Amino acid sequence: MPLIENGLELLEPEECRSLLGRGGIGRVGVTIGALPAIFPVNYAVLGEDIVFLTGEGTKLRTAVDRSVVAFQIDEFDNATGWSVLAVGVAAEITDGAELDAARTLRLVPFAGGDRCHFVRIRPEFVSGRRIGDPTAS
Amino acid sequence: MPLIENGLELLEPEECRSLLGRGGIGRVGVTIGALPAIFPVNYAVLGEDIVFLTGEGTKLRTAVDRSVVAFQIDEFDNATGWSVLAVGVAAEITDGAELDAARTLRLVPFAGGDRCHFVRIRPEFVSGRRIGDPTAS
Repeated sequence: MPLIENGLELLEPEECRSLLGRGGIGRVGVTIGALPAIFPVNYAVLGEDIVFLTGEGTKLRTAVDRSVVAFQIDEFDNATGWSVLAVGVAAEITDGAELDAARTLRLVPFAGGDRCHFVRIRPEFVSGRRIGDPTAS
Repeated sequence: MPLIENGLELLEPEECRSLLGRGGIGRVGVTIGALPAIFPVNYAVLGEDIVFLTGEGTKLRTAVDRSVVAFQIDEFDNATGWSVLAVGVAAEITDGAELDAARTLRLVPFAGGDRCHFVRIRPEFVSGRRIGDPTAS
């Protein structure tokens, strides 16, 4: 039986991880100069980590460096869909073996520039909810 | 000539506002217990304000109350698309005339429950970027 919180069906952790594992477009929530910001990224999953690319000198690269960030994905068809939220520390990948593994993900960077940097988020908390169509019932 | 920042084309403020004006699914970035979080909402624009519904007693309702929040929308087709970010103070709409106006928006709440609350974000900063397909050039 599904868990309901505030009228929304909560997704099981395994379902959240399975949806995260698809990769694609996700959104990173960070703080820049005390103000919140959300940036879309093209991401993939490596082990348990969420991995994406940032460009050299971008706001996003500075903001995610060893910070606790939010990462969110969703899919909607009108008002029906689901959303998954992961929260964890982000850090640039610098280890050689990890970089080699990250390069196999064939990620396309959003920000341009020659020098791209791999960032990983190690999720500490993962939650998800299904959003039903209230007009359908 | 378009402005470029870190290899991404910046959108003009009028284009950002025009894209925000479409309404639909947006994402709110807030802080809950010192941790960042992102929630999808169904929103519309009233004047300059971004308006959405929260359910009674939801985490989102508590988090947005008189806080500075991020609001983000985007649209992607594979790795090509755009993203708009607005930042401003969120507050529950309590004024009678404003509530009447908000009710005309015919917003569908994501969170269930009988009691819904209108929240508005008054954008102080709006920015947007177009994300091209690097494989297309």
